[in-house]
Amino acid sequence: MLYMNRLQIIETIRKKKSFLCVGLDTDIQKIPKHLLTLEDPVFEFNKAIVDATLPYTLAYKPNLAFYETQGWKGLLSLEKTVAYIRSRADNVFLIADAKRGDIGNTSTQYARSFFGQENPNHNFDAVTVAPYMGEDSVKPFLEFENKWVILLALTSNKGASDFQLLEYNNRRLFETVLETSKQWGDADNLMYVVGATQAEMLTDIRKIVPDNFLLIHGVGAQGGSLEAVIKYGMNNDCGLIVNASRSIIYASQGEDFAEKAAEEACNMQRGMARSC
Amino acid sequence: MLYMNRLQIIETIRKKKSFLCVGLDTDIQKIPKHLLTLEDPVFEFNKAIVDATLPYTLAYKPNLAFYETQGWKGLLSLEKTVAYIRSRADNVFLIADAKRGDIGNTSTQYARSFFGQENPNHNFDAVTVAPYMGEDSVKPFLEFENKWVILLALTSNKGASDFQLLEYNNRRLFETVLETSKQWGDADNLMYVVGATQAEMLTDIRKIVPDNFLLIHGVGAQGGSLEAVIKYGMNNDCGLIVNASRSIIYASQGEDFAEKAAEEACNMQRGMARSC
Repeated sequence: MLYMNRLQIIETIRKKKSFLCVGLDTDIQKIPKHLLTLEDPVFEFNKAIVDATLPYTLAYKPNLAFYETQGWKGLLSLEKTVAYIRSRADNVFLIADAKRGDIGNTSTQYARSFFGQENPNHNFDAVTVAPYMGEDSVKPFLEFENKWVILLALTSNKGASDFQLLEYNNRRLFETVLETSKQWGDADNLMYVVGATQAEMLTDIRKIVPDNFLLIHGVGAQGGSLEAVIKYGMNNDCGLIVNASRSIIYASQGEDFAEKAAEEACNMQRGMARSC
Repeated sequence: MLYMNRLQIIETIRKKKSFLCVGLDTDIQKIPKHLLTLEDPVFEFNKAIVDATLPYTLAYKPNLAFYETQGWKGLLSLEKTVAYIRSRADNVFLIADAKRGDIGNTSTQYARSFFGQENPNHNFDAVTVAPYMGEDSVKPFLEFENKWVILLALTSNKGASDFQLLEYNNRRLFETVLETSKQWGDADNLMYVVGATQAEMLTDIRKIVPDNFLLIHGVGAQGGSLEAVIKYGMNNDCGLIVNASRSIIYASQGEDFAEKAAEEACNMQRGMARSC
């Protein structure tokens, strides 16, 4: 399988009884010290985390910031990670958490990059995109067959209230982003980022986008509740991908880091199993 | 000079009689064919463009998308370009056009990367940032001394009207972005991206941010007028950095590309000289 369409995502969720996404926010300052003597510590860490968590996991989501901070060497660690995940399983959904968005021809460049058009080891299924620049900054990503845009809607951070909650014509900005972007794509190529810290707002979100998958941030380290997300956000096709980063990958700083990560991922998967 | 503060930018504008920024949106598909036999065609192209345009130029602005699309090799071309520009002159303002923005600890990673904390060859003066995620996504960039955030306000593309012009409480979103972000930084560390295609709106923008520098996009290939930008946007300290990308770097596709780029840059600088 070289891609994951909507049906394949739903099938994988039912088979694995999991809609867990593990965020590979791999910070070289935070990984166990014994890895630092290896040639590519970031890759070795990711490899061990993937091996340990794969049975419980639908998706992996490297955040580009943590790789870019290491310059071209960081990008090489990322490419090796993507290639490794692809070699381990064909039903894994790979998200580039990049929050990109630029004028049309520049967004096309980003899309070509993240969707592996130039480099098969950079072949993600989906990329997170920021909506501020509007339609022509998002559409170039939607033009790639069997690829996904995950558009920022209502994020989990404190600053979300600065602009996303601004209200005009009885509608908040994030609701307008949902309404407007529905005309650019559909439930087969467009998902939305929603913060678990705002779980009660999932009811309002589901009124606008009943069918689209939602990528939920902030369960775990940021304090969001998995139960609330399931209660307010789930639809008939599951419709949820729930991310956890630090609570899994940094569950232990010792030599048992992979084992502890597997335990955390397994715990989260168990919380999901009865709803899948 | 390892950085450019506000006074140094103003002095350089007065000395060079230029507030031109050359956008290094270097697309390997578009550069002259005779360069493709060289080991690093993108770097060789940038080097020739910089050599040719430096007398007329205040700033250079590589757009990250064009480098990322080449994977880690693209980032290496970018690092070599940054190092080359730093070796050629100490009064050049270097902008990473990246349009980043993420939750706090992730924005810190991006800031460390673009401001050269990990790698001296990735040492930009400024980075463009998207405002959608609010204060804690922008502030980490503002915490670096003698570095700049250039926040997206009113962009030059068609999609700008989708969200940036939405009005509530008699104020458009981009105006709220200006008002709100003024509390996060000041004219010494915060600039704004404004599209030249919206030059008449510069009057409204100057009412909110009279002192901040504005990075103006869309003069040249996108059809914006330099005269209108100067008329409506200039303040007592100049307060403008005007970008041109394709109209300069692709002025010719032949072996004379650098010469033609110099002519275009010189033409633009002449249009600026009488106002500096």
